[in-house]
Amino acid sequence: MSTWLNVPVSEPFFEVQAELPGRSGRVGTIHTPHGDIQTPAFIAVGTAATVKAVLPETMKDLGAQAVLSNAYHLYLQPGPDVVDEAGGLGAFMNWPGPTFTDSGGFQVMSLGVGFKKVLSMDTTRVQADDVIAEGKERLAHVDEDGVTFRSHRDGSSHRFTPEVSIGIQHQLGADIIFAFDELTTLVNTRSYQEQSVRRTHDWAVRCVAEHRRLTEVRHDKPYQALFGVVQGAQYEDLRRQAARGLADIGFDGFGIGGALEKQNLATIVGWVTDELPDDKPRHLLGISEPDDLFAAVAAGADTFDCVSPSRVARNAAVYSATGRFNITGARYKRDFTPIDAECDCYTCANYTKAYIHHLFKAKEMLSSTLCTIHNERFTVRLVDRIRQSILDDRFDELQADVLGRYYGSSRAS
Amino acid sequence: MSTWLNVPVSEPFFEVQAELPGRSGRVGTIHTPHGDIQTPAFIAVGTAATVKAVLPETMKDLGAQAVLSNAYHLYLQPGPDVVDEAGGLGAFMNWPGPTFTDSGGFQVMSLGVGFKKVLSMDTTRVQADDVIAEGKERLAHVDEDGVTFRSHRDGSSHRFTPEVSIGIQHQLGADIIFAFDELTTLVNTRSYQEQSVRRTHDWAVRCVAEHRRLTEVRHDKPYQALFGVVQGAQYEDLRRQAARGLADIGFDGFGIGGALEKQNLATIVGWVTDELPDDKPRHLLGISEPDDLFAAVAAGADTFDCVSPSRVARNAAVYSATGRFNITGARYKRDFTPIDAECDCYTCANYTKAYIHHLFKAKEMLSSTLCTIHNERFTVRLVDRIRQSILDDRFDELQADVLGRYYGSSRAS
Repeated sequence: MSTWLNVPVSEPFFEVQAELPGRSGRVGTIHTPHGDIQTPAFIAVGTAATVKAVLPETMKDLGAQAVLSNAYHLYLQPGPDVVDEAGGLGAFMNWPGPTFTDSGGFQVMSLGVGFKKVLSMDTTRVQADDVIAEGKERLAHVDEDGVTFRSHRDGSSHRFTPEVSIGIQHQLGADIIFAFDELTTLVNTRSYQEQSVRRTHDWAVRCVAEHRRLTEVRHDKPYQALFGVVQGAQYEDLRRQAARGLADIGFDGFGIGGALEKQNLATIVGWVTDELPDDKPRHLLGISEPDDLFAAVAAGADTFDCVSPSRVARNAAVYSATGRFNITGARYKRDFTPIDAECDCYTCANYTKAYIHHLFKAKEMLSSTLCTIHNERFTVRLVDRIRQSILDDRFDELQADVLGRYYGSSRAS
Repeated sequence: MSTWLNVPVSEPFFEVQAELPGRSGRVGTIHTPHGDIQTPAFIAVGTAATVKAVLPETMKDLGAQAVLSNAYHLYLQPGPDVVDEAGGLGAFMNWPGPTFTDSGGFQVMSLGVGFKKVLSMDTTRVQADDVIAEGKERLAHVDEDGVTFRSHRDGSSHRFTPEVSIGIQHQLGADIIFAFDELTTLVNTRSYQEQSVRRTHDWAVRCVAEHRRLTEVRHDKPYQALFGVVQGAQYEDLRRQAARGLADIGFDGFGIGGALEKQNLATIVGWVTDELPDDKPRHLLGISEPDDLFAAVAAGADTFDCVSPSRVARNAAVYSATGRFNITGARYKRDFTPIDAECDCYTCANYTKAYIHHLFKAKEMLSSTLCTIHNERFTVRLVDRIRQSILDDRFDELQADVLGRYYGSSRAS
């Protein structure tokens, strides 16, 4: 296995232990300076250097292997120099295990003040390219060199380039970092998508150069693996072209990003993994629904992250073996059973639906804590079970069982 | 030692192990069906059946011996029948240790909709008795039989009487419950205070009768100890009269409530403990400041509760050996030391001021969790140290050292 940077790594970064017959899915291990990640793995999101409402030890106890934070958020608050001075992201947040940082590409374009309103996946309300390239309301402006945007915190103006993003991510010091990419939407025109894929490729080259330069400057720091991000929206040729291009540049691994409609997820991940080298890990950005996880694993994705398990938990939506429900419903006021009788999490072992229902009604913070613990455990455990099912050669059986019960028998495959 | 109710108790409810020479302070043990409380002890407040932002296991780890919840809040949400059906307060909230409930007397009068605005300890803005007895704006109305008030949640009208409060507290099932008392303020007239003390005495008699009746009806449940609450504001004769009256009725222990100005705290507690039997525990409601704790212990109080450690924590105010400070101050942005170098809490062991400062700036819930853990541990530990200092015959030495450093040398006694 090649290590594209002249940085000594004591073992291969990624190893494949087993494969899913006839498909691209596999079981593997990612080795980082802060520990191993057994894949497939769900990576918990801790955007601002904290998994919202949950202590790091609790995340460890529920089986989380790694935490993904965001370069955009940490750039604005507390500033990457503060995290650097603290000894890096993991030391700063008391998470001794592996860490990821997203490049900020998605956030600078989607969270810029006001921009969220016009950049939407809802095709009925968005008018093609002008949201990014020509719209009067745009608050994030993309050019060949980078992106100028406004802070969602105070409206102040900032600029990210590939070099800036990589510089920030080196200061943050996560084990796995991402190249700076451009976000497009499903409603951009074909010609804009082509232009964007080319731009993301050019930025990837610059990210690698800057990463190499900084790695040499700060050679005493633990090795940071750099992942390129494959864009290309719903176009097969663009996705394949983007993946091949990034594979040629040479990365430690790859992210798969951008607009993915649920029904095309497996197809698009399949095109990309077709083109990517089998000895590098692939991270699919932003999924956590049970059907998406099975589809993504089968199509060859190794790791995933998503804010949903914790975000919906804070809004009282909890997962169970038989589907998702909102625990503020009146029927749960006197329900003295756990959220999910089959769940092995701390919340289900110690609390009833009635108590958690009460916490939400009383507007108590512990409601978020308990439901986040449950939803994160549910998701982490599901991916762990998918992993084990590949080793046991019963992936299809598990998929049919889990999805049949979660979505109702009509969805069983 | 007398047990005034015909309920078998396997051991004395309260035992004194050591005394503070020349003063009323003592070291003891309260035995409850859910475990012992070593006194003096700080009792953590979990108003709505949760210590805000902290898991019960974490409270246990930081040395909290018992949790005090509130009958008023739990009556409104989720309703005492729900808690009863859950197996009582401790089972409902996953706190296996001892529990207290306050009677709701304070809350029905201070939290009634809008009433908070006119019932204030600020003498410059309050016009004597009319806030309770005659004011046009009153939303809690006290009569000889009880109190009619409005919910702070939805403005709905409710009525508490001594029998209602005791009935609710029996459903909640805490180990230590309080008689329903009337709240007065320092600005009520002398004649109103006299009237109120007499009324609180009459209510105490009714609470005992209802407690006895319900204890016989539900004799299969764990024994609940009933504490009478001594009122009387700043008047020595009223405080002594109230204490003697309650002592004659016979209670398992006593609360000391009502308006207490900081500078008179030791004096007033002293009057009360003078009159109360030495073999019953005394709970001082609503204190947690270091100087107040030393003063109250010396004057004979055994347990205390207060919302302050967690309430101020949620507003970023943290305690340290050298005083209280607000961690959102700019000077802490790059302070990579713990909140208090002398503290042994989880937060100080694992997090820097810089990280906690960041969490507040990023509006992350974990800020409340970490600061509450620290402030609760600080307070619990201080009271534990006071306890040990009595056993070691060095109470005055500890007091001079702790207060001198906390408030600055000018305050050293």
